[in-house]
Amino acid sequence: MKLSINGQEYEFENGKNALDIAGEISKDLKKTALAARINGRVISLPEAINEDGVLEILDFSDADGRKVMRHTASHVLAQAVKKLRPEVKLAIGPAIDNGFYYDFDVDMPFTPEFLKEVEKEMARIIKKNERLERFELPRAEALELMKDEPYKVELINDLPEDAVISFYRQGEFTDLCAGPHLPSTGRIKAVKLLSTAGAYWRGSEKNKMLQRIYGTAFDSKEALDAYVTEREEALKRDHNKLGRELEYFTTVDVVGQGLPIMLPKGARVIQLLQRWVEDVEQKKGYLLTKTPLMAKRELYKISGHWDHYLDGMFVMGDPKDETKECFALRPMTCPFQYQVYLNRQRSYRELPMRLGETSTLFRNEDSGEMHGLIRVRQFTISEGHLVLRPDQLEEEFKGCLELAKYFLEAVGMLEDCTFRFSQWDPANPNNKYEGTAEQWNEAQAIMGKILDHLGVKYEIGIDEAAFYGPKLDIQYHNVFGKEDTIVTIQIDMLLAKRFGMEYVDADGQKKLPYIIHRTSLGCYERTLAYLIEKYAGALPTWMAPEQVRVLSVTDRAADYAKELSDKLCEMGYRATADLTGEKIGKKIRLAQMEKIPYMLVVGDRDMAEQTVSVRHRAEGDLGAMSFDAFAALLKDVVDSKARK
Amino acid sequence: MKLSINGQEYEFENGKNALDIAGEISKDLKKTALAARINGRVISLPEAINEDGVLEILDFSDADGRKVMRHTASHVLAQAVKKLRPEVKLAIGPAIDNGFYYDFDVDMPFTPEFLKEVEKEMARIIKKNERLERFELPRAEALELMKDEPYKVELINDLPEDAVISFYRQGEFTDLCAGPHLPSTGRIKAVKLLSTAGAYWRGSEKNKMLQRIYGTAFDSKEALDAYVTEREEALKRDHNKLGRELEYFTTVDVVGQGLPIMLPKGARVIQLLQRWVEDVEQKKGYLLTKTPLMAKRELYKISGHWDHYLDGMFVMGDPKDETKECFALRPMTCPFQYQVYLNRQRSYRELPMRLGETSTLFRNEDSGEMHGLIRVRQFTISEGHLVLRPDQLEEEFKGCLELAKYFLEAVGMLEDCTFRFSQWDPANPNNKYEGTAEQWNEAQAIMGKILDHLGVKYEIGIDEAAFYGPKLDIQYHNVFGKEDTIVTIQIDMLLAKRFGMEYVDADGQKKLPYIIHRTSLGCYERTLAYLIEKYAGALPTWMAPEQVRVLSVTDRAADYAKELSDKLCEMGYRATADLTGEKIGKKIRLAQMEKIPYMLVVGDRDMAEQTVSVRHRAEGDLGAMSFDAFAALLKDVVDSKARK
Repeated sequence: MKLSINGQEYEFENGKNALDIAGEISKDLKKTALAARINGRVISLPEAINEDGVLEILDFSDADGRKVMRHTASHVLAQAVKKLRPEVKLAIGPAIDNGFYYDFDVDMPFTPEFLKEVEKEMARIIKKNERLERFELPRAEALELMKDEPYKVELINDLPEDAVISFYRQGEFTDLCAGPHLPSTGRIKAVKLLSTAGAYWRGSEKNKMLQRIYGTAFDSKEALDAYVTEREEALKRDHNKLGRELEYFTTVDVVGQGLPIMLPKGARVIQLLQRWVEDVEQKKGYLLTKTPLMAKRELYKISGHWDHYLDGMFVMGDPKDETKECFALRPMTCPFQYQVYLNRQRSYRELPMRLGETSTLFRNEDSGEMHGLIRVRQFTISEGHLVLRPDQLEEEFKGCLELAKYFLEAVGMLEDCTFRFSQWDPANPNNKYEGTAEQWNEAQAIMGKILDHLGVKYEIGIDEAAFYGPKLDIQYHNVFGKEDTIVTIQIDMLLAKRFGMEYVDADGQKKLPYIIHRTSLGCYERTLAYLIEKYAGALPTWMAPEQVRVLSVTDRAADYAKELSDKLCEMGYRATADLTGEKIGKKIRLAQMEKIPYMLVVGDRDMAEQTVSVRHRAEGDLGAMSFDAFAALLKDVVDSKARK
Repeated sequence: MKLSINGQEYEFENGKNALDIAGEISKDLKKTALAARINGRVISLPEAINEDGVLEILDFSDADGRKVMRHTASHVLAQAVKKLRPEVKLAIGPAIDNGFYYDFDVDMPFTPEFLKEVEKEMARIIKKNERLERFELPRAEALELMKDEPYKVELINDLPEDAVISFYRQGEFTDLCAGPHLPSTGRIKAVKLLSTAGAYWRGSEKNKMLQRIYGTAFDSKEALDAYVTEREEALKRDHNKLGRELEYFTTVDVVGQGLPIMLPKGARVIQLLQRWVEDVEQKKGYLLTKTPLMAKRELYKISGHWDHYLDGMFVMGDPKDETKECFALRPMTCPFQYQVYLNRQRSYRELPMRLGETSTLFRNEDSGEMHGLIRVRQFTISEGHLVLRPDQLEEEFKGCLELAKYFLEAVGMLEDCTFRFSQWDPANPNNKYEGTAEQWNEAQAIMGKILDHLGVKYEIGIDEAAFYGPKLDIQYHNVFGKEDTIVTIQIDMLLAKRFGMEYVDADGQKKLPYIIHRTSLGCYERTLAYLIEKYAGALPTWMAPEQVRVLSVTDRAADYAKELSDKLCEMGYRATADLTGEKIGKKIRLAQMEKIPYMLVVGDRDMAEQTVSVRHRAEGDLGAMSFDAFAALLKDVVDSKARK
């Protein structure tokens, strides 16, 4: 067979495997190899190759290479647990982003001490360098082999009639598995168990709660240690922990998951971000709207949401009973904001019409999917729709992009963003997209031209478009390295027609406008989560819920302290005074813990000299100065939106 | 029998009627009398009196006197319609605020020409001074008498077994009616038909649509004319007409009734009112919250809304299926905002805790009940809850009242407000109220004491309390004379216990706080409606959506005009420039029609001299002045919240 490897052409006898081929090319390559990719398909190194094409030898630098190592590590984990607790039943154990897990049916949750034992056992298995052998069995024999593992039996029974049923064996341990895997356990260079969690069998609340063990594996002890340190740092910043501790938000069972309650600090930050976005948008010529949060089924039928999005919507009434009024909460603002445009006939002179709204949206998702402020059922977002003449498309698209970049830069998030051009899936067009291939090709060509013209560097995401058009997604990479869409700017050439949104052009003809759907700063709840994580709770002064705390050293200085904090409030800052009888050290520690940017420590001398002793939470003691000098310093930090 | 009339004691033979008694007292009294009230019960003048007590002779200055006259007028209306169109079927015809109506089942809607004919026929009936005779019939005979009137038959069949079935006859016309009525039609001094409308039989969409004729009656032609003129003026101010014409809001069938879409002007006014309320509340020590718009059934079960308010709520899912998650949109903010308090243990030092939120609420009401911005299914309101120690109740109640009065005074609505102390109904306690008679009596006693102490003049409203406590309602009287509750301040001694909202007191004991539920300015949508009506669309400058329009007289002055409007925007005002080539007269007319407070007319001379020619929409030409002089004038008007 003929194989191309790293751009070089090779000829090998049929049936030779990638491990041997790697060995022929270089000793190092053989040593670091974890798996192979033949014509795009990932295989185990010992698998015989019988086809011409492109072969890649995958090491830990490759995502699939990492995945194979971590998948094998999950088998090692299962082997170790079975060795220590043979009565445990096995569920599943895949590789995931940055690691792997395995789910076990066990009476008692695993203790940290037990995990230590498991790690030791795993080290022994790795040291023994057990070979992983793949074999296939007919269904009856497969069921017989797994007869003591009820979850495996269920999995086998769910396989289609003609499925190949394969197993991987290492030493005394055998698991039902499609692979691929490492050739032997010794190629796992460093492994660590990270945490445990409850997890329902097959993710459904109706099933039994299993115990999951999370772990990760790396190609060196150093890489593992670096990852663990980074992860610990990130965990400290986790908004779902820190945001609750700092009293930004909470959730409550009787209210429901995915419905966060913004406590005064969180509510204040969201208020100031919203006002800022509304005010900047107003200056950019946006017209504010305020449209209802629900509508009758009929509106969603016109917009297409009823056909494309019903499952994701909260419906009030029976969606199938057409004889009765049926309302649904809105998952998007578009069909509502269009009604503002439709209020009367529009002339070309009124375009571009830029409509903006601080909009609350609802998504009906499973309770199990909910997470802090990031995966929620209700959220608020600056949603805008620009109704345009075709000749205004590039200029307005540019304006939207610049506006989003301005906001993201100001809050400090732009540096962690990348761009993605999300397109439809031409291979699967009828599934979820409106419009014809011609319309999609045209819209995508125009958007591609605009992006290239604006010099935007982007990746392409196939099958990531909205159902009505392509979009530019701004992807935020959070402190855990996870990527999420934070802002999107979409070009829509379809909905204007559905809604009859015409304008009378200069030639007196009625024409269909283009529409841009866009947001400026994404969902406020999610943005707040990212900001808490990015700044480890110490939000920059301009957006901190409490900017200054005045701390009285003595009871005598209490009135002076109160006067200063009142003065700051009067000037429009968010200030309080701590006038309790506590020692000043304790007051400072409390303010530090609450991550308040500026502390003004005032004692007898300050009172006499009409000064303040200024502390910054990160910069420490800034010395004594007049109140006016501090006010000037504060004004400068706030007005410049400095990141401190 | 012994009767006290106007503080005088009289003795009459038993069975004497009020008309004869009035005649004995004075000729004028007999002439103007419309009905009587014996021991609080309203009766027809010819009804024999057989009891001791207090007798009042009612003329048109009395609300019940007016009601009786208008009720009789509705019978005259029905008599006239039957005379002209005998095939019409009669439904019901009561007196209402400021008039009366009658509902008819008729194939074609009534035309204005027909109403004119009816008015003539009514005038004839009144001139004939037909006597109204009351008689009773057993059920079978009553049904026989009304056999050609299917709606009357339905009404008779719905009467309880032991009901007295009474009729009133005037000339050839007889109607099923409980009365009371005028002695004869001639006492209607002036009558007019005002409008027609469709109305469902018994108010339900499931029933047939009937045709309603509205009319009114007065004690003199002059009073009627004055009312009609006033009503026409009020109709011009009707927010449901003017608010749409001025593009404050719209409604759309496919979205739904009661779900107004705020157009940019309306959205801007609501935005500025909300920010103003939030900012003033912040200065008053309120902590801002932002809580979810929906919750699981479980929360409403704790709060009592599930038992007391389910019909008024939008429910997602099957409320009866306890095995599945069921959410409902919130009709009130209380149980949500309580979660903020419940976030951790609270100390007496943290009280009073004043929580405020710009909150969106939902009420599931019939489509037929919806009206403009006033009767809606979704609205936004400043909702606040104050959690208090008992010793803080009066001071905090006072603070709430002062805050509401401050806001209502600033927008100009306080002068049209009265106060109502809404209490439970001790005669019907178990129907809709939580808590014991002791708790209600205590809460109402405390609240009464506070109101008296604060010198608040109030009426008492029985059976008007919230289900958890008594309240002070601030009643707004709109331009049509209709009264609505705009602000309420409620004392709640029950819900804290249900939610376990304790605080640790100075003595280390856990105690239950009091809660005040309150709003500052009522629903923003409704307030906007009242403001549009009060100011006939010409909102005071400080809250006008567009405050200044700069009008260029010539093309040469366009840049200068644009520069001025940009400058005003930069200064934080809402300004635009009209730079079109239209004549200046037309530009001014357009700005006047849109009720923009200030117009800056700038031509060549203004440009050369760097001046502006100022017009005010109501005050007219204010002459030429420097831009700085105008800016100072504008600042003064806006900062002082002047009513111009």
